[in-house]
Amino acid sequence: MSAPLLSISRRIRSTPFTRRVEAAGVKAYTVYNRMLLPTVFSTVEDDYHHLKRAVQVWDVSCERQIELNGQDAGKLAQMMTPRDISRLQDDQCVYTPSVDGRGGLLNDPMTMRVGPDRYWISIADSDLLLWVKGLALGSGLNVNVTEPDVAPLAVQGPKADELMARVFGDDVRSIRFFRFARLPFRGRDFIVARSGYSKQGGFEIYVEGNDLAEPLWDALFDAGKDLDVRPGCPNLIERIEGGLLSYGNDMTLENNPYECGLGRFCKPSAAVDCIGRDALLQLERIGPAREMRSFAIDGDAQAPCSDAWRLLSDGKQVGMVTSAVWSPDFETTVGLGIIDASHWKDGTTVEIETLEGMRKARVRARPFI
Amino acid sequence: MSAPLLSISRRIRSTPFTRRVEAAGVKAYTVYNRMLLPTVFSTVEDDYHHLKRAVQVWDVSCERQIELNGQDAGKLAQMMTPRDISRLQDDQCVYTPSVDGRGGLLNDPMTMRVGPDRYWISIADSDLLLWVKGLALGSGLNVNVTEPDVAPLAVQGPKADELMARVFGDDVRSIRFFRFARLPFRGRDFIVARSGYSKQGGFEIYVEGNDLAEPLWDALFDAGKDLDVRPGCPNLIERIEGGLLSYGNDMTLENNPYECGLGRFCKPSAAVDCIGRDALLQLERIGPAREMRSFAIDGDAQAPCSDAWRLLSDGKQVGMVTSAVWSPDFETTVGLGIIDASHWKDGTTVEIETLEGMRKARVRARPFI
Repeated sequence: MSAPLLSISRRIRSTPFTRRVEAAGVKAYTVYNRMLLPTVFSTVEDDYHHLKRAVQVWDVSCERQIELNGQDAGKLAQMMTPRDISRLQDDQCVYTPSVDGRGGLLNDPMTMRVGPDRYWISIADSDLLLWVKGLALGSGLNVNVTEPDVAPLAVQGPKADELMARVFGDDVRSIRFFRFARLPFRGRDFIVARSGYSKQGGFEIYVEGNDLAEPLWDALFDAGKDLDVRPGCPNLIERIEGGLLSYGNDMTLENNPYECGLGRFCKPSAAVDCIGRDALLQLERIGPAREMRSFAIDGDAQAPCSDAWRLLSDGKQVGMVTSAVWSPDFETTVGLGIIDASHWKDGTTVEIETLEGMRKARVRARPFI
Repeated sequence: MSAPLLSISRRIRSTPFTRRVEAAGVKAYTVYNRMLLPTVFSTVEDDYHHLKRAVQVWDVSCERQIELNGQDAGKLAQMMTPRDISRLQDDQCVYTPSVDGRGGLLNDPMTMRVGPDRYWISIADSDLLLWVKGLALGSGLNVNVTEPDVAPLAVQGPKADELMARVFGDDVRSIRFFRFARLPFRGRDFIVARSGYSKQGGFEIYVEGNDLAEPLWDALFDAGKDLDVRPGCPNLIERIEGGLLSYGNDMTLENNPYECGLGRFCKPSAAVDCIGRDALLQLERIGPAREMRSFAIDGDAQAPCSDAWRLLSDGKQVGMVTSAVWSPDFETTVGLGIIDASHWKDGTTVEIETLEGMRKARVRARPFI
């Protein structure tokens, strides 16, 4: 299936940046958290090369925030993740996989404490808001759960520090990885975090309220002309090369954190009062029977990975690839997927059933970086 | 914004019918419950005329089912809706709006009891599964909450009875509105309900398992050649004419059931132990300050309602239109929206701010039927 047309309605929410994104000539979208997320501006390959050498501004408003506010906010934030967040610093963002009672992945958001008894959870593509609301209500917690009017804007690429310093001042340079600061733009303080869905470095700006969205977009483009700043978006090639997982693509409710390589973020101990603790303890003890890996796939896969591609060895299924695309820099099709313990060793060769026929795929212990 | 391209990935789930839908020449999709939902086959207008005179087969797999299974399934099903479902018949489907603790709409699904202590809830566009899972876990209920492998296929249009009788036998003719029967196809019983998202009559077949999906699609097309059966989909014009609300377009978490005209499905009494009861009792006592109405809007609105269009009177906002499209049969732009009590009377004329400038809009007490 090549890219079909997307019918627009209010249900597919536009963002405070959509007018600028359209004016900048966006070529295609995906729908993420029931909201428009650009996927291509020039071509996926042009966007990729540019992201690796310059700086891009990304409308990632679809990274919706869940706000927990009230006396039990901290308790609820901890219930939502097996990661121990009891020592979360005031300027820290932490990656916090969320699981259900059986240890199945519900989402893989980032959590920040943005005030006393006040948290923002920046979500991937599932209505985690409803899970949290149901959980809070069912558990009788004293906490307000809402989706605030916040639209993240990402600035990514090797020249991100320089561009951001021109707009927010040199303070941005001292923000450490997965830390944030509150920096002023036109008299309003925005949370600016050193984070983002690429391996090229950069920031995410949590734009509160819609009135300053277009002025901020314009300020970044005005300040970055000589840096060749361009509109961009999470890039399929770059994120697969870098091994950045995508919830809904590479992992779903059917997967647990251990098999997705997220075990290091889970501390399901007696001290961490989280949903799914017993299930995770059990899974941790047994150890994963399959695991996420990168793959180098022969040839140029033209069709998108619209469904999982089966991995085979001697005709028997041993795994599946869930994202794949041609990489110009590595001159192979790069993929992400899950493979059984029997075949997960670095360098193992298996067969893969693509839409264009059988290919060879080599397991890689590490991403393409 | 005209229809942009949609980038395909595993996260935008395909359905057991997608290959047939593609082969049938689908022109555009929307994304609904993170799944492909066709929106156009010929043109929206051609599809509309055909739906009103013949019969169509719709891939509505995106109407995902939530299965509640276990001792507390009935209790949880009732917690999920202010509609009294204590006297639900074994062959009955009921429309069951779901609200949060404040009475805000979470979804407007249909509920069936498909076995002892076993319910299917056929949802609109929000991950209600996560709400129900959170609620069940937080409340300590003894119930399993899953998304079963069920893909509804709708057969809609005035010739639906004839086509369905040819494939499922004459028993389909005796199924009453919002009732269902279990009817065999190739040796397997499917739930067949007289329901669907159009005003032209028809059925929804709950296809369990993927293996019979394409054979069923093919059987319907083979049997219906002389009935001019065609692939179709929920039609924007027909559904707005008929006043069929769309969750996410016409109502959101910001709306309560009363202002959406869904008060008749709510019985928040002491006898109905549901989430949001107190909030709904309060809202019921006060009565709505604004209500859903149909609108006849001057001229031919070319741009889709990608965001709410403001309704104005003497320059002051009195409501908003959330869905609108040109109706060939009524020779006006038809719309759905919410308007304040001061202006909701049938025949009231207000102004509407469309993307193409100001227009006149007339309030209608009833849909265009």
